[in-house]
Amino acid sequence: MAHPGSASNPGWLTDIELAEARRRLPMLYVEALPVRTDGVGLVTEVGILLRATPLGEITRSLVSGRVRYGETVRDALFRHLENDLGPMAFPLLPPQPVPFTVAEYFPIPGVSPFFDDRQHAVSLAFVVPVTGTCEPRQDALEVTWMPPEEAASDSLAAEMEGGRGTLVRLALASVGALR
Amino acid sequence: MAHPGSASNPGWLTDIELAEARRRLPMLYVEALPVRTDGVGLVTEVGILLRATPLGEITRSLVSGRVRYGETVRDALFRHLENDLGPMAFPLLPPQPVPFTVAEYFPIPGVSPFFDDRQHAVSLAFVVPVTGTCEPRQDALEVTWMPPEEAASDSLAAEMEGGRGTLVRLALASVGALR
Amino acid sequence: MAHPGSASNPGWLTDIELAEARRRLPMLYVEALPVRTDGVGLVTEVGILLRATPLGEITRSLVSGRVRYGETVRDALFRHLENDLGPMAFPLLPPQPVPFTVAEYFPIPGVSPFFDDRQHAVSLAFVVPVTGTCEPRQDALEVTWMPPEEAASDSLAAEMEGGRGTLVRLALASVGALR
Amino acid sequence: MAHPGSASNPGWLTDIELAEARRRLPMLYVEALPVRTDGVGLVTEVGILLRATPLGEITRSLVSGRVRYGETVRDALFRHLENDLGPMAFPLLPPQPVPFTVAEYFPIPGVSPFFDDRQHAVSLAFVVPVTGTCEPRQDALEVTWMPPEEAASDSLAAEMEGGRGTLVRLALASVGALR
Repeated sequence: MAHPGSASNPGWLTDIELAEARRRLPMLYVEALPVRTDGVGLVTEVGILLRATPLGEITRSLVSGRVRYGETVRDALFRHLENDLGPMAFPLLPPQPVPFTVAEYFPIPGVSPFFDDRQHAVSLAFVVPVTGTCEPRQDALEVTWMPPEEAASDSLAAEMEGGRGTLVRLALASVGALR
Repeated sequence: MAHPGSASNPGWLTDIELAEARRRLPMLYVEALPVRTDGVGLVTEVGILLRATPLGEITRSLVSGRVRYGETVRDALFRHLENDLGPMAFPLLPPQPVPFTVAEYFPIPGVSPFFDDRQHAVSLAFVVPVTGTCEPRQDALEVTWMPPEEAASDSLAAEMEGGRGTLVRLALASVGALR
Repeated sequence: MAHPGSASNPGWLTDIELAEARRRLPMLYVEALPVRTDGVGLVTEVGILLRATPLGEITRSLVSGRVRYGETVRDALFRHLENDLGPMAFPLLPPQPVPFTVAEYFPIPGVSPFFDDRQHAVSLAFVVPVTGTCEPRQDALEVTWMPPEEAASDSLAAEMEGGRGTLVRLALASVGALR
Repeated sequence: MAHPGSASNPGWLTDIELAEARRRLPMLYVEALPVRTDGVGLVTEVGILLRATPLGEITRSLVSGRVRYGETVRDALFRHLENDLGPMAFPLLPPQPVPFTVAEYFPIPGVSPFFDDRQHAVSLAFVVPVTGTCEPRQDALEVTWMPPEEAASDSLAAEMEGGRGTLVRLALASVGALR
């Protein structure tokens, strides 16, 4: 892990520099919808995170985070899954490098289905089967497992920020689990 | 399993009926390239089957077989993986229902990259990570694990029938493991 | 076109033989959702067919049909698009051979989201941009163009047979046009 | 177009700022392989660019460029296609937002098949059918159309920089045009 000010890691950014970059460049993100599958790979349950925002609000979310300088997309995806689901969860990353969708978040609402007031972020989104036990650390409080039809509901979408309810539906569609 | 002549399974076909249908209708197949992956899902090795043809010739092949009447594509894929890799292999079927390619085998060479003198077969082809031990039964004699570059080589393609060397390359491309 | 009894086309089936095969083998189909796109490829409108069933009922549907013996999936797709949209429509078939989903229709409801009381059909489903004018012939009465959100609505799904409302939603999700 | 120092476009970067960002953050790119298709969408020819490097060397390349702050991936793709192929080329962007691969370029060789000594770039790569006439402007000198087998050859790969010969093969595989 990089330490603040570490001269050995040119990819490390101060908070100020990162804030500056966010106003100038699209930021690359990865997102993942954790799923439980049955013996032949069919999705049986979907894991939705309960997360506290910096302002203390509780929202529902996906596994999500930035790709760092020098890091592969695959390593970033694994790092954020481990951060958000804990060390006892075993994500089975797909061998394919292609996301199920590319979600484009803009700071201006309406440009796309996705919105992020902090930045222009382009997110490669994956469905990831997970075995083991999920014990979130960091700012994710809990993982709630639910059947696909509940994850696709309007009521769940209303609890998700930035259009991520749409992202969950696109994820479910990609695995044939949307009705 | 259906028994010959079983009145309870209308999908059961005599050899004569199947031979007849093969001259009239495209047959639906599934094929799979078994792979070993590392901790973040990158393909490290590819499993190629050594198979004896009805005439006693030895050829290299993929996991392959017909989809039966009433059977889901996913169940057919699992059944053929189990048949060809044995009961101690654990295939991790992808949650997505979409193949990496649709391989069309024609009885006339040159219509497509794929050829099958017995029939017109349309094959949904998947890359499937496998853990455990592969001990082929039935007509598959052995599974040989090899690095992606060897699986993509011209010499291996020359040992495969019906254009399946091309299918292996398309499979490797879909997981970013083709150079 | 094959003529009844034509000895030159072994793939030709009498109605009785086709009915028999339908009880024994999965039938291979192609389906297409025609779309209008803007200058950068975004889907702006979706074409839904109004079709009369053999019993005279009016239902909404997609472009759909069987793949014949000896015919490529691509040729079958083009043939059914031409049949259903008329000769003044110009479908732009995608260069990729991979469908957005594989829809499995079973004669028993509940096995999958898709149902067909006549047969077990496996359908490769594509989204196809179309330019020109659509003047359906054969049994398709009309093409209705509508915005994606209307095509994804519950009321439209209720007018579609065999779970094709779900298929329309999966199609829209594959092009990022589902909310 | 943004003008240097334009206060109205916060996404505008000086050369120094862009150079700085390139040492700190993964840059988001789009790339495209232009193709000619036949009436049913099969790829018949592939367009490879002849490009002069800043040092005056001639290399072969794909359509390629950065995604700007506030710009959609689709708009960036269209902008670079227009820049590299000229105003008389008509690219038919696919309705799907998903690339055929995600090519990760690192400044250190061997991390991935792709290399870029200037930066860590993550590139969403698309196959784009093009009609009309290609008259490159800017630094692309010429578009050479060739059959898929020539585009996949080792001799062509040797003339391409940064592993883009591999990218061409992955593109061809995605449209079933690699043998």
